[in-house]
Amino acid sequence: MRRAAEPRAILRVGSHDAGPRDDLIAVEAPLTLTSQGDVWLTTMRTPGHDRELLVGWLFHEGLVRDPRAEISSLSVCGRPFDASYGDAYDLVPNAAMETRLKARDPAAFSRTQLTSCGVCGRQSLDDLVFEARSLRPGNTPRPWSSSTLTQLFTTFGGTQPLFAQTGCTHGASVVNTVGRVLVTREDVGRHNAVDKVVGHLALSGQLPVAGDQALLVSSRASLEIVHKALLAGFSAVFCLSAPTSLAVDLAQQCGILLAGFFRAGGFNIYSEHQRVVGVLP
Amino acid sequence: MRRAAEPRAILRVGSHDAGPRDDLIAVEAPLTLTSQGDVWLTTMRTPGHDRELLVGWLFHEGLVRDPRAEISSLSVCGRPFDASYGDAYDLVPNAAMETRLKARDPAAFSRTQLTSCGVCGRQSLDDLVFEARSLRPGNTPRPWSSSTLTQLFTTFGGTQPLFAQTGCTHGASVVNTVGRVLVTREDVGRHNAVDKVVGHLALSGQLPVAGDQALLVSSRASLEIVHKALLAGFSAVFCLSAPTSLAVDLAQQCGILLAGFFRAGGFNIYSEHQRVVGVLP
Repeated sequence: MRRAAEPRAILRVGSHDAGPRDDLIAVEAPLTLTSQGDVWLTTMRTPGHDRELLVGWLFHEGLVRDPRAEISSLSVCGRPFDASYGDAYDLVPNAAMETRLKARDPAAFSRTQLTSCGVCGRQSLDDLVFEARSLRPGNTPRPWSSSTLTQLFTTFGGTQPLFAQTGCTHGASVVNTVGRVLVTREDVGRHNAVDKVVGHLALSGQLPVAGDQALLVSSRASLEIVHKALLAGFSAVFCLSAPTSLAVDLAQQCGILLAGFFRAGGFNIYSEHQRVVGVLP
Repeated sequence: MRRAAEPRAILRVGSHDAGPRDDLIAVEAPLTLTSQGDVWLTTMRTPGHDRELLVGWLFHEGLVRDPRAEISSLSVCGRPFDASYGDAYDLVPNAAMETRLKARDPAAFSRTQLTSCGVCGRQSLDDLVFEARSLRPGNTPRPWSSSTLTQLFTTFGGTQPLFAQTGCTHGASVVNTVGRVLVTREDVGRHNAVDKVVGHLALSGQLPVAGDQALLVSSRASLEIVHKALLAGFSAVFCLSAPTSLAVDLAQQCGILLAGFFRAGGFNIYSEHQRVVGVLP
């Protein structure tokens, strides 16, 4: 199995621990998904939870709905790339998924997804934005307390072992209203980390997510992060850093609670602020 | 002109400055490039320096070599998207560039580049990695002093006004061996920030860059950041955060000085460490 971090010889300069050493570096390597001879995806990712990443991506693209019923097998196959750089998986769909795949053009995906961005592969961004506006969270949203949010923002980093080792990866977690971190995945690509989390939920029959759960990401939140969360049924998205304008707009239009920019012990609420209790000191 | 940051009503929670307010949010909006009826690029970006972004992208894709001679015009045209979300530019090439465009398939680009990742649109990552290994910096590299690097890592943030406003954008700068920041561009996409910088250099006749210049990015460094730097002739890449394994490997293979992970007053050198003087206290 390919490792998520590998040592490289580095020279540390200027701090108390200066000198040469081996440092752990986050691995970036391509992952390819083929099915019945077609290449559907090539994405740069950090190895680990590859099947979850692929299932999360398929779910987000609408290519699979119930992966446990629709995917007959998803297994490592021949490596189209230099063996030192990449991995490939081959998917065998059931009849329902095969029909769905045949209705789509793999060429429209295969060249587009190297960054695994959920916005890629759309004919028009208008389509995505207008489609997304009609989406709604999957289950009745539960209220969040501001103290739980502060606690989650504070302790979330401790659930990212690869980031602790490498300082290079993004994390995505499912958290709930009582302040528990239910699952965390990491990747050099922030979209991949979210796909791995959603793939985990899909493979364990947990989609759409419960109304007391939120997606928490270590990074900024852009349009596609909120879009991926919406499709998985999340009613809340929390980002450690700041969101973009389209992320805020989509959250407001779709009734997603969006909070982030955790600094100096405080955070911002960008939408649905009435769902956070205890916001006044 | 579309703004790079827009106000949104937010609620600040938990810190000394808690309460409702208008906050500046980094704008994320699509940008489309058409030429002679073909769509070549749709990327999510922060408005501002759009022409530089497009020229930098064209340069990186090998579609333009000398934009001042080869681009007859590059101007705002009709908007294929909802006017509230996107902008479009139309490019008129000269005969040489037109020949180059006709030899490529715009469909292979137009759906691929929503994240503006330089790795997208490649038939095979092997091609990119093997091609890139043969690249070399454009001019004889000059030595860097460790104190200059520490100073640049410390003061770089001050050259990013949009990040100071929004906390959401990535920055890319050209810096030199005497510690000057020559140009800085910002964007919600880190690849876009680099494309804007390279486009600026291309439009001002500064490619390949001089041997005393480096590309400094506020983010992590992945394969495509080092690849974009290589194509612009940079012999050094500095990243405030950590690089990925492929970024380190490509830098080592191509003779790029790669330094980063600036923490606690120190930084790491990942390749070509003999080109940094004063590394011992």
